[in-house]
Amino acid sequence: MSREGVQPPGRGRLRVGVVGATGYGGTELVRLLLGHPKVQLMYVASRSAETPLDVTYPNLGASSVPDLQVFDPLVCAQSCDFAFVALPSGVSGEVAVDLWQRGVRTVDLSGDLRLPASVYRAWYAKVPVDEQAQRAAVYGMTEWASAELATASLVANPGCYATAVGLALKPLAARGWLEGTVMVDAKSGVSGAGRGANPVNLLGDLSDNMYAYKLGKHQHTPEIEQFLGGEVRVLMTAQVIPAVRGIYACMYVPWGRGHAAMGEIQALYEDTYRGTSFVKVLPSGQVPSMKSTRGANSCFIGVHWDERTEILQIVSTIDNLQKGAAGQAVQNMNVMNGWAEADGLTVVGMYP
Amino acid sequence: MSREGVQPPGRGRLRVGVVGATGYGGTELVRLLLGHPKVQLMYVASRSAETPLDVTYPNLGASSVPDLQVFDPLVCAQSCDFAFVALPSGVSGEVAVDLWQRGVRTVDLSGDLRLPASVYRAWYAKVPVDEQAQRAAVYGMTEWASAELATASLVANPGCYATAVGLALKPLAARGWLEGTVMVDAKSGVSGAGRGANPVNLLGDLSDNMYAYKLGKHQHTPEIEQFLGGEVRVLMTAQVIPAVRGIYACMYVPWGRGHAAMGEIQALYEDTYRGTSFVKVLPSGQVPSMKSTRGANSCFIGVHWDERTEILQIVSTIDNLQKGAAGQAVQNMNVMNGWAEADGLTVVGMYP
Amino acid sequence: MSREGVQPPGRGRLRVGVVGATGYGGTELVRLLLGHPKVQLMYVASRSAETPLDVTYPNLGASSVPDLQVFDPLVCAQSCDFAFVALPSGVSGEVAVDLWQRGVRTVDLSGDLRLPASVYRAWYAKVPVDEQAQRAAVYGMTEWASAELATASLVANPGCYATAVGLALKPLAARGWLEGTVMVDAKSGVSGAGRGANPVNLLGDLSDNMYAYKLGKHQHTPEIEQFLGGEVRVLMTAQVIPAVRGIYACMYVPWGRGHAAMGEIQALYEDTYRGTSFVKVLPSGQVPSMKSTRGANSCFIGVHWDERTEILQIVSTIDNLQKGAAGQAVQNMNVMNGWAEADGLTVVGMYP
Amino acid sequence: MSREGVQPPGRGRLRVGVVGATGYGGTELVRLLLGHPKVQLMYVASRSAETPLDVTYPNLGASSVPDLQVFDPLVCAQSCDFAFVALPSGVSGEVAVDLWQRGVRTVDLSGDLRLPASVYRAWYAKVPVDEQAQRAAVYGMTEWASAELATASLVANPGCYATAVGLALKPLAARGWLEGTVMVDAKSGVSGAGRGANPVNLLGDLSDNMYAYKLGKHQHTPEIEQFLGGEVRVLMTAQVIPAVRGIYACMYVPWGRGHAAMGEIQALYEDTYRGTSFVKVLPSGQVPSMKSTRGANSCFIGVHWDERTEILQIVSTIDNLQKGAAGQAVQNMNVMNGWAEADGLTVVGMYP
Repeated sequence: MSREGVQPPGRGRLRVGVVGATGYGGTELVRLLLGHPKVQLMYVASRSAETPLDVTYPNLGASSVPDLQVFDPLVCAQSCDFAFVALPSGVSGEVAVDLWQRGVRTVDLSGDLRLPASVYRAWYAKVPVDEQAQRAAVYGMTEWASAELATASLVANPGCYATAVGLALKPLAARGWLEGTVMVDAKSGVSGAGRGANPVNLLGDLSDNMYAYKLGKHQHTPEIEQFLGGEVRVLMTAQVIPAVRGIYACMYVPWGRGHAAMGEIQALYEDTYRGTSFVKVLPSGQVPSMKSTRGANSCFIGVHWDERTEILQIVSTIDNLQKGAAGQAVQNMNVMNGWAEADGLTVVGMYP
Repeated sequence: MSREGVQPPGRGRLRVGVVGATGYGGTELVRLLLGHPKVQLMYVASRSAETPLDVTYPNLGASSVPDLQVFDPLVCAQSCDFAFVALPSGVSGEVAVDLWQRGVRTVDLSGDLRLPASVYRAWYAKVPVDEQAQRAAVYGMTEWASAELATASLVANPGCYATAVGLALKPLAARGWLEGTVMVDAKSGVSGAGRGANPVNLLGDLSDNMYAYKLGKHQHTPEIEQFLGGEVRVLMTAQVIPAVRGIYACMYVPWGRGHAAMGEIQALYEDTYRGTSFVKVLPSGQVPSMKSTRGANSCFIGVHWDERTEILQIVSTIDNLQKGAAGQAVQNMNVMNGWAEADGLTVVGMYP
Repeated sequence: MSREGVQPPGRGRLRVGVVGATGYGGTELVRLLLGHPKVQLMYVASRSAETPLDVTYPNLGASSVPDLQVFDPLVCAQSCDFAFVALPSGVSGEVAVDLWQRGVRTVDLSGDLRLPASVYRAWYAKVPVDEQAQRAAVYGMTEWASAELATASLVANPGCYATAVGLALKPLAARGWLEGTVMVDAKSGVSGAGRGANPVNLLGDLSDNMYAYKLGKHQHTPEIEQFLGGEVRVLMTAQVIPAVRGIYACMYVPWGRGHAAMGEIQALYEDTYRGTSFVKVLPSGQVPSMKSTRGANSCFIGVHWDERTEILQIVSTIDNLQKGAAGQAVQNMNVMNGWAEADGLTVVGMYP
Repeated sequence: MSREGVQPPGRGRLRVGVVGATGYGGTELVRLLLGHPKVQLMYVASRSAETPLDVTYPNLGASSVPDLQVFDPLVCAQSCDFAFVALPSGVSGEVAVDLWQRGVRTVDLSGDLRLPASVYRAWYAKVPVDEQAQRAAVYGMTEWASAELATASLVANPGCYATAVGLALKPLAARGWLEGTVMVDAKSGVSGAGRGANPVNLLGDLSDNMYAYKLGKHQHTPEIEQFLGGEVRVLMTAQVIPAVRGIYACMYVPWGRGHAAMGEIQALYEDTYRGTSFVKVLPSGQVPSMKSTRGANSCFIGVHWDERTEILQIVSTIDNLQKGAAGQAVQNMNVMNGWAEADGLTVVGMYP
């Protein structure tokens, strides 16, 4: 690990920075950016910088990472043309807006820029960012926003649950086939809770365990409803299982009203995502396993029609730190720069 | 581990046997019966007996367990007054009925005695047992069957998912408050799949993974519908998570039709299970974690009313090898013998 | 869970208390004492008592546990004839000595009473307890101290590593067959680190991971050397693996000097522990797996002679929260009261 | 996943094949080769090909992998200039030699080509391959064999334990500082046992468990001794822990004979591996954690001198499927082709 601080950028490479590098999402950004062929990681910061990054994350110890710095917006703006901000909600958005106002194109990974002020206040119980900035931010569900992203300079990166659920339900919503209430039973690996040391997430506690949290109050709920648009309501159960990475969402759509036959639904999904780099629709009747996408920026979707109960069931899975956070953020950067969507994201997921 | 074979029963103790002792459910039966104050474990058998039981399950090595024998109905009937049969479905029921016809009171832990022949055939795709015997078998969801159990000599022990879901929904069903389709998103520890060596359940595969299986076709579905009675339909998703023990079922009951206020529902649950030994209803709005019941015969239930979407959400959890199999089987034996329901089942669950 | 506070003791039962009940060791004590036939758990305390015990440990929620109190020595001494203190080292010993001086027979589970002041100071870097009290404390490696325990009123409960290693090496040491340096490669489940929320022990970090710590400086080293006596030196590597419970110690004893043939060594071990309730010596050449003892107070030991390199290898395993902490503490209480050693400790370990 | 079979090679790319692709090592090869900039994966085979590779390993489902074929040496030799054989020992070597004799440069990942016939027979109890071929095979511990590898056409890829231990001890051995017996306490993630469905490696059994196996008889022992050369003896304990990937080896070298001061030893290690792409020597006194290398081709080594007992302790860790198998195989291919050693191996390891 280099200790000499900022390095000269590779010729023609975009100078990028990561603010909030010590969290699980931040270190995944660092990991991905180190392998990206078109960028140079110039700046790595967090709010405190007591522990070198490769001590906290020894996997980085064999690489050349800039020294971890205490975040300073001036230094960041001087070192970088492009920044990722992965701080906790309530802090992150403000930092992102500040960098953006200094001319740094910025992707914010928190929830701070995703929702209008009133909705944000109701679900986050925190002070919203400047409303104009929030409105300027493009919601970066990449597959559904490429046109806007091409000209965006400030991006609100979607939440992990919101990505898994949004990608899975949007084809129906866009066709106008979704109404009423969709029940979403979502399970997450514990890395979604971050590296804050909560005893319930110790291996001693979480092993052989699982739990639901924020029942009926998870802040990704309004984000999903906003993304789907219209009158759709979502009841989402967020649950932690004893796994590290992954979102596994089961969605129950009461149907049976003749909207479409199963064949049409399957075709709708296949047509929607044909040719995309990362969203894979499984053959009819199959549903994915969680580890299918671990370590990759993919989203796998399976659609199942339960004839007996007339319920349409959709299962989707992502790696919450990749397509659910850092991976999608890099994908958004690619689109914002007119690069191939998959640049730096071509690694095949790890199994076992 | 004693190698001297059958022992003389303790004075006044019931002579019991376990057939199918080498599976996870069977070994849990052995473990529980070794600690039961009113029985003497006389007979332990499986279909083959190549490996001594305490080699497969070294935890038994510090105890005194009868030698594992190749199952022989004659020997079993001579050695035991009471038998548990925990063989695979398709085999287990026939063995149980045979023992019962030889005068041994029997609890069968498989699915073979739970359903009428036609339903069994449709969901199990196996040959049903003798219909008269099946009809004679009492369905042993203990809290709801104590009167019948008191005089029963043949018991169909409920399935693990069916127990978690049945106990959680029966209060509503019994009151007539359940109709239409209930969506059940159920997660299970992998011990529910037994010790058959399926590569997908290797730690290498299952770690950081989860998967749904038998989508819309899980054989506990008709068992639950039969137990709830009436017109209720259940769509159940069975999913394996990287945990060993536990069922964690989230149930979504579309409501909002003025059946009852949340306060009434909470009271209904508390009233129903007040004074029971093993079912604990959590305070209003709380839902349990899976490990709450690990290693114990408990079932924890939490009820949550989601005002925004008008859906009633119920979460229940059990240890699939205890209340979901061996524990409930012992509880049923207790009731069948007029003993205290909790005899031999008083151990506090293990945490961490 | 009872909220009415202190209960009247069962007739003839010993009134016991647990100080430091919110740690993993403390809650295991509570769990075991609830099932002990000869005691009544009267008092459960910790240094702060903000969270009810059955919220932290929901497995206790189905039982009747006295309310958690803020520790007060006066109240404890009034409520209890016997106390277990399971606070962190540096605090625990002082509390234990205080209670003992108030006439409460006490078992201290920390390291504070195990070593003479000078050794304690060198390895713990903390202030030792009163030297007279320390000398009065019996070192409670039960199988090797029953005579002293019978009259003891203050007991230093051995450390988890020290128990696994001490029981495995003492037969050789007692015979005078141990000299020079024994290398001990010990692995522990993470519950040994307690419930203090250290990020390295989060499931996100510890999954698929293991690490050595306190290299050459683990405080159980002098405890083991003192227990073995004489000139034996121990180099112990303490390592955390992604398991919850268990110590798995591999010991390498350079041999080859004709002390004894393998047959004699095996016989020595079998003779030493024949008839004990909890120590099981495996047949020659076999070594145990860690889960053999999970949830039980057992210690399994296997001895292997490597002819090629002339090294004697010994493997032992315990559950660190049982024989390595709470289980042995209860076993010590049994001996101190003249009860059967296994009272309240008869549960067969849990597998799977 | 492409179903159209063999594809035309990318311009100027080496045509490579994988035989034995359905094992954990084989699928890791496929994963790495898909991302390698200088090769084209032309041929993927196993002994049976009933299940498509992306059904067994869904992570491959988003990539373009040639259809899995039943292995046919003729087809393989026609399709490929270079082959990796990752079949079980006893089968693999023969296939590798056959392909090599047909003019395909070949890396064999099994143990079949690593040892002379007499040693192989003694430790593997299998029929050795043709002796001339075995002698022609270069032992591919890359950092110590680059000169020979540059002209090699048949390579015996080292074992996983042998790599972790060999890299860690070779600096001492090469300097002549190693003698007598080194004790090696090695722990492995369960993927080292392959995907053969052994019940002891089910998550239900292995969770909260660990076990030693092949005590004193592990077949990597003679491989290590041969690699270290001279008179060094190794007693290695192979142990499985509940992790997926990783080898964590603790080595105990009785020292204290004035060979060198700790400073010299540390310098020796740093000098030896300075400038290598994958071996990282930690600062003096630090030892690595297992997850440091997960998903990467690295080896981390830490050296610790225990003054009190005069034992030199060395800890090394690798990912058994990367540096311990597929990664080192690709590294060897790189050197055999005169490419940069790290081509296709630049991904930063995954954490968490």
